[in-house]
Amino acid sequence: MILGQEPILLTPGPLTTSPATRQAMLRDWGSWDAQFNRITASLRRDLVDIVHGGDTHVCVPLQGSGTFSVEAAIGTLTPRDARILVPDNGAYCQRLLTICRYLGRDAVALPIADDQAASAAAIDEALTRDPSITHVAQVHLETGAGVLNPLAEIARVCQKHGTGLIVDAMSSFGALDIDVRSMPFDALVAASGKCLEGVPGMGFVIAKRSVLEASGGNSHSLAMDLHDQYMYMQKTTQWRFTPPTHVVAALRAAVDQFLAEGGPTIRGERYRRNCRTLLDGMASLGFRPFLAPEIQAPVIVTFHAPADSKYDFNAFYAAVRERGYILYPGKLTRIDTFRVGCIGAVDDNEMRNVVTAVEQSLSSLGIRQVAPLTHPA
Amino acid sequence: MILGQEPILLTPGPLTTSPATRQAMLRDWGSWDAQFNRITASLRRDLVDIVHGGDTHVCVPLQGSGTFSVEAAIGTLTPRDARILVPDNGAYCQRLLTICRYLGRDAVALPIADDQAASAAAIDEALTRDPSITHVAQVHLETGAGVLNPLAEIARVCQKHGTGLIVDAMSSFGALDIDVRSMPFDALVAASGKCLEGVPGMGFVIAKRSVLEASGGNSHSLAMDLHDQYMYMQKTTQWRFTPPTHVVAALRAAVDQFLAEGGPTIRGERYRRNCRTLLDGMASLGFRPFLAPEIQAPVIVTFHAPADSKYDFNAFYAAVRERGYILYPGKLTRIDTFRVGCIGAVDDNEMRNVVTAVEQSLSSLGIRQVAPLTHPA
Ligand SMILES: Cc1ncc(COP(=O)(O)O)c(C=O)c1O
Ligand SMILES: Cc1ncc(COP(=O)(O)O)c(C=O)c1O
Repeated sequence: MILGQEPILLTPGPLTTSPATRQAMLRDWGSWDAQFNRITASLRRDLVDIVHGGDTHVCVPLQGSGTFSVEAAIGTLTPRDARILVPDNGAYCQRLLTICRYLGRDAVALPIADDQAASAAAIDEALTRDPSITHVAQVHLETGAGVLNPLAEIARVCQKHGTGLIVDAMSSFGALDIDVRSMPFDALVAASGKCLEGVPGMGFVIAKRSVLEASGGNSHSLAMDLHDQYMYMQKTTQWRFTPPTHVVAALRAAVDQFLAEGGPTIRGERYRRNCRTLLDGMASLGFRPFLAPEIQAPVIVTFHAPADSKYDFNAFYAAVRERGYILYPGKLTRIDTFRVGCIGAVDDNEMRNVVTAVEQSLSSLGIRQVAPLTHPA
Repeated sequence: MILGQEPILLTPGPLTTSPATRQAMLRDWGSWDAQFNRITASLRRDLVDIVHGGDTHVCVPLQGSGTFSVEAAIGTLTPRDARILVPDNGAYCQRLLTICRYLGRDAVALPIADDQAASAAAIDEALTRDPSITHVAQVHLETGAGVLNPLAEIARVCQKHGTGLIVDAMSSFGALDIDVRSMPFDALVAASGKCLEGVPGMGFVIAKRSVLEASGGNSHSLAMDLHDQYMYMQKTTQWRFTPPTHVVAALRAAVDQFLAEGGPTIRGERYRRNCRTLLDGMASLGFRPFLAPEIQAPVIVTFHAPADSKYDFNAFYAAVRERGYILYPGKLTRIDTFRVGCIGAVDDNEMRNVVTAVEQSLSSLGIRQVAPLTHPA
């Protein structure tokens, strides 16, 4: 850790941003000013282009955290009598179910173990069994454990059944290739402070234009009415309500860097390198990842907590933080885990360094036994 | 205008912030980190203290723009069968009515001319006439024209009738003295990017603890459920969903400066000085304010547009902007006006300079006639 330097965030957002991104916030912008509104317009275009949606889709940004945009997408883009299938392999899937409950949308959970990916075949079967289902709400990358769900196959199943698809791509957008031409969706939701490496404070919805334009009157909320936000923005180029101007300017800077780096494929490669370096290093210390490699997304890794009675997450967190890295607690209820993010303005060097920080922290805390004495079969 | 310097915002938020406030955004914070959560906790305490609410009220911050917090307050703190009186003298009052419509809350408008303040006597009469009204939703400072409504008297009327009071104090909080001990309210809503001189991106609700604690199950929205946000924050010290960390850090810096300056009384004095200087200077150019002095709040001033056929707001805006100042369009529909803010990290010097910029702009645009040839009686 460089003396006087703030700790590096290895968390799934907020994450460590680049100095150029943060410095973009050193200026105040008027929300009515044409120069600011050109930033908004260029961001909306670039975000749609990332998923190759220019011909069919539009981007509607929304103030608030990512959850606000997820709720706005469901509330605006599904009718009040929708029936929504939610494949559930973790905390963010469960949040979709909670949103449906608040909004009075009829939701059907499709339970999946939290160490398994969603299955397109099971979704196909569920849609065949229950033709009254109108929509699927699918988390692309379930950040709870870090599982990658097979979006392309699920999109094809929805297309086959004529079922609407709403995707929560919060922690995958920008890092994993998403192409609406081969993975058709009604809406895909992400936010400023994840793999685009902006700062948190706004979300956005990439919505199919025809669905969005037909969605007037659906929303349960003024602030989260995406149809109203879209119509107003088309007419005026402005946000309906005060935009988080500094967050928007930072996202513009972050997306410039993202495009200069080479877009999602290259960013995904950097994250995969980070993830591999992390997994290898942690394995050498005896740590076991929670997920099988085939479904592990290169964004956040869940590790089993050390099998040592001296282990306590808060003390471990503090020891690693002192050495310059901020880890993330586990989000699973049935077993003890912690998580390490591979995303943000960091490279594999940092991943080697955090492994060293973990090693030293274990030793300073007197934790010797990392893996269980006998592996479960 | 200093060469290379960005224009100064004379708008009612986003506004011009101090360098120290913007520089507080140069650091990334983990949303799980105790150090960040201490910032949240200290802000919540300081914001309640500003209105002397420590014994009875609590502060719940919320992601998003100010409107999100207004909607959250109505959606969470009034029951679904509430009947809400909305004294209406402008655009933000009408937004309260729109929110009530979205939320299915029964709303009763009390129309007032947009150049008049709300009247406590008229509210008293309305509450007497219709005892089924359960709440009053009152804009404190109607930013549309800049009118100050008599909050203390209205609060006393509500207290007399046992009617709940929800206050939108977006553009007054921090600049005008508000004291919940003498102006009791159920909830008061404001945001980071107004008179506290932070950057936009979060709102907050100062809610009566007993009302908030009894409000579980009211909210129409997960993301805007203040009760849930509050309960989670009390339990964990954390925000439920990713906080706008940089906006929060900037608000902490801004509130530090606010308290060092001397709190709302001193800030209000600076704004009153700004406002007086602006009004005097503009009067010397022939500009007439839209409001009578008694109801003009020292936050934003609406001026009649020049009575010259050569006048066009966009050209005028551009000319003044070139000279270093960003003005704001009018928000009245029936007559042509523009607005100038008196708030932000600016003093009366800037107000003298903007008057000079306006004078030069008029001359460069060939606008000679500012006031109508004969004043209306
Ligand atoms: C998959 C997924 N969905 C939704 C969210 C919620 O986003 P936020 O915390 O910004 O509301 C997250 C946050 O990490 C996420 O990973
Ligand atoms: C009185 C009042 N209410 C509500 C708002 C809405 O706030 P926002 O634009 O942040 O949503 C404003 C904004 O200026 C305001 O002045």
